[in-house]
Amino acid sequence: MTPLKIGMIGLGTVGGGVAKILTQHPDRIERRAQRPIVLQRVAVRDLTKKRDVDLPAEILTDRVQDVIDDPEIDVAVQLIGGTGQAREIMLALLAAGKDVVTANKALLCEHGDELFTRARELGRSIAFEASVAGGIPIIAAFGSALAGNQITSLSGILNGTSNFILTEMADKNQTYEQALRRAQELGYAEADPAMDVDGTDAAQKLVLLSQLAFGVRAAVAEFPCSGIDTLTLEDLKCAADLGYMVKLLAVARLVDNLLEMHVSPTLVRNNLPMADVQGVFNAVKVTGDVVGETWFSGQGAGQLPTASAVLADIVDMAVGRSQLTFPTLDLFGGRTTFSVQPTDKILSKFYLRFNALDRPHVLADITDILGRHEISIASVVQHESPEVESNNNSVVPVFIMTHRATEGQMRAAEAELNQLKSLQSPCIRMRVAE
Amino acid sequence: MTPLKIGMIGLGTVGGGVAKILTQHPDRIERRAQRPIVLQRVAVRDLTKKRDVDLPAEILTDRVQDVIDDPEIDVAVQLIGGTGQAREIMLALLAAGKDVVTANKALLCEHGDELFTRARELGRSIAFEASVAGGIPIIAAFGSALAGNQITSLSGILNGTSNFILTEMADKNQTYEQALRRAQELGYAEADPAMDVDGTDAAQKLVLLSQLAFGVRAAVAEFPCSGIDTLTLEDLKCAADLGYMVKLLAVARLVDNLLEMHVSPTLVRNNLPMADVQGVFNAVKVTGDVVGETWFSGQGAGQLPTASAVLADIVDMAVGRSQLTFPTLDLFGGRTTFSVQPTDKILSKFYLRFNALDRPHVLADITDILGRHEISIASVVQHESPEVESNNNSVVPVFIMTHRATEGQMRAAEAELNQLKSLQSPCIRMRVAE
Repeated sequence: MTPLKIGMIGLGTVGGGVAKILTQHPDRIERRAQRPIVLQRVAVRDLTKKRDVDLPAEILTDRVQDVIDDPEIDVAVQLIGGTGQAREIMLALLAAGKDVVTANKALLCEHGDELFTRARELGRSIAFEASVAGGIPIIAAFGSALAGNQITSLSGILNGTSNFILTEMADKNQTYEQALRRAQELGYAEADPAMDVDGTDAAQKLVLLSQLAFGVRAAVAEFPCSGIDTLTLEDLKCAADLGYMVKLLAVARLVDNLLEMHVSPTLVRNNLPMADVQGVFNAVKVTGDVVGETWFSGQGAGQLPTASAVLADIVDMAVGRSQLTFPTLDLFGGRTTFSVQPTDKILSKFYLRFNALDRPHVLADITDILGRHEISIASVVQHESPEVESNNNSVVPVFIMTHRATEGQMRAAEAELNQLKSLQSPCIRMRVAE
Repeated sequence: MTPLKIGMIGLGTVGGGVAKILTQHPDRIERRAQRPIVLQRVAVRDLTKKRDVDLPAEILTDRVQDVIDDPEIDVAVQLIGGTGQAREIMLALLAAGKDVVTANKALLCEHGDELFTRARELGRSIAFEASVAGGIPIIAAFGSALAGNQITSLSGILNGTSNFILTEMADKNQTYEQALRRAQELGYAEADPAMDVDGTDAAQKLVLLSQLAFGVRAAVAEFPCSGIDTLTLEDLKCAADLGYMVKLLAVARLVDNLLEMHVSPTLVRNNLPMADVQGVFNAVKVTGDVVGETWFSGQGAGQLPTASAVLADIVDMAVGRSQLTFPTLDLFGGRTTFSVQPTDKILSKFYLRFNALDRPHVLADITDILGRHEISIASVVQHESPEVESNNNSVVPVFIMTHRATEGQMRAAEAELNQLKSLQSPCIRMRVAE
């Protein structure tokens, strides 16, 4: 059969992995695709950079336009980050008649509406398995394997960096800062890890999954999103004492026909599989009204796991599956069935930590504010101050678990709590999974 | 778009579930398939039987030939069991120009070579997601999501009935017989549960998965297969004392370029996710050379989980994905890359239980035989006989864990051990997962 000629834009970590497998195992890829797949052109920023994949010099170019203009290229693999230039390049690729494979979830989250609509108008397809949860075929699950279902809930660990940091802290008794440094040394966290550790990355992935699973178009700003960057080892230890592990959980689930969405560090019972997800692994639990509960896990980050997802999309493009699937997906610009539950109404149990100055009446102040907001307390832990004689400058942590309360109640209470002069720093809040 | 007209053969548990969703949620299915799916004809054995799905009387027939002969039916959903008549019907459906969806793993395991070859000759497709692991999209994973990988190992709990029985025994302190009865009451086990509990069902599924994952054509007789039907509550308790759960594990993995395959009750370390798979859930751990370790789980039995898989295949047929995928699958009649590791050579650690008569020299006899076969012992547990004064008729269990030994060594030793007059019954043997 005629070879499929592909162009690649970006030869970074993931691109390098894809190029490696395509060039080292052409036989395997050809067998699965039923045709040879030829890497025709690769656009890179710096032609002189040393790379660990060996490509013929003549296919490398530092002009993206060379990929866009090559009429022989049917499928472009777009592996650059960001949402500005990446958007322009994708629009140009689609306009030039190319189908596009991408791993850029930020781009799809921010400009998906425009890009997917444009692709449909032009009769082109976009495949993006690699944009969520690396090696886990979760996009394919929503796109075809669970086609008979109405998904009723999904919940998952979608950010490998955060999960690695939490695992290091819990298993090796490391501080947040130590664990983050380790993640950076191992290449699991960027020099600027903000989007990973503040929950944004997981929230963007949740936006994409919620589109596919529920036909719901939500922006990250429409649901509560917090990260692990305010947590301390003390929080993890307190959770452990209570029988929980802390995980950065992304949740979207139907509650009374509204879609509740949130991303937050969450206390997960020790004996649940989600608590067992270690290191850079991701996991997604999906419940459908026909299939019941299903579970997917795999490495969510790293060169090869993500390359595996990109390769699956390339093979799907070569076989023609992607082109059939793309028009059937519930995507931006398509139908919207459910509304997003307003943030204020979301009900959860919460874990709170206060760094209280060791003074009289602090606990009374805290519990008074919670009580006035009708937040009922399930348990309180306050240990004796480490100093023999407590003084006004010593700080003691106070841990409170609440019964169910709304995000609205909690936010109102928090605003008041954070005014208390007897607290050294803002209150730390996590959800408790039920 | 033109509706896809389908015919169904068999309206039992799974068929009833499929018909229910097709008739109760036609909108959902149409959206995913981009065309209406119409249940045109359903062949049943007994037209007068009361059913819990409401179908118009005119689409029911008791003649399979009506489905085969209907030129408007493009896709047949073949949901009858057995390997005799089912084979003939499938050949007739293919010859009549129909693509076929089936959940019959026994049929594909026994006659896959003939059926898949015939389908290819005729340009037809067979889809069989529901034949392995119910609601888990494991066929799709091998068929497309992991297309960039050489799978290096797969291991899984593939029989829900056995896993339900083992869970009941372990959690509720039930005997094998009590747990089996409970499984039958709940509809998880057939009146004749032999194929489920003796490992055959899991072995047939392993044969299919090994085809897809490794391109290896093996018959069930070519690898060791044992079931849970000889286990006692005592075995599970002894395993628990040692820090293990007992699971019926199906394994296929590459060892020195040979494919090692086996199905056996296996001791799995308590802290591993596989040990946590409960009740009728199935789970499959797949390792690929690109993606690393991935994990899939979901309900492996029951009306709706299996119906979910059948519906995915029907939608794939309606969209045209199955027709593209089928020719790319490494299936019977295709390439065979790896040879099956000869049974005698398979290396494992083993758990052994002997019901020994409480006489002098029994342990010496056992250990002597093991020693002569160069099977080295890792640990022995023999508790005091419950009677105050032991006598020649009291039976004491002796538990032995071995270091790694080959299946050949073990079988030879077992043949001698089972001759020992001091043993009340044949030795019970399980693998220990490493």
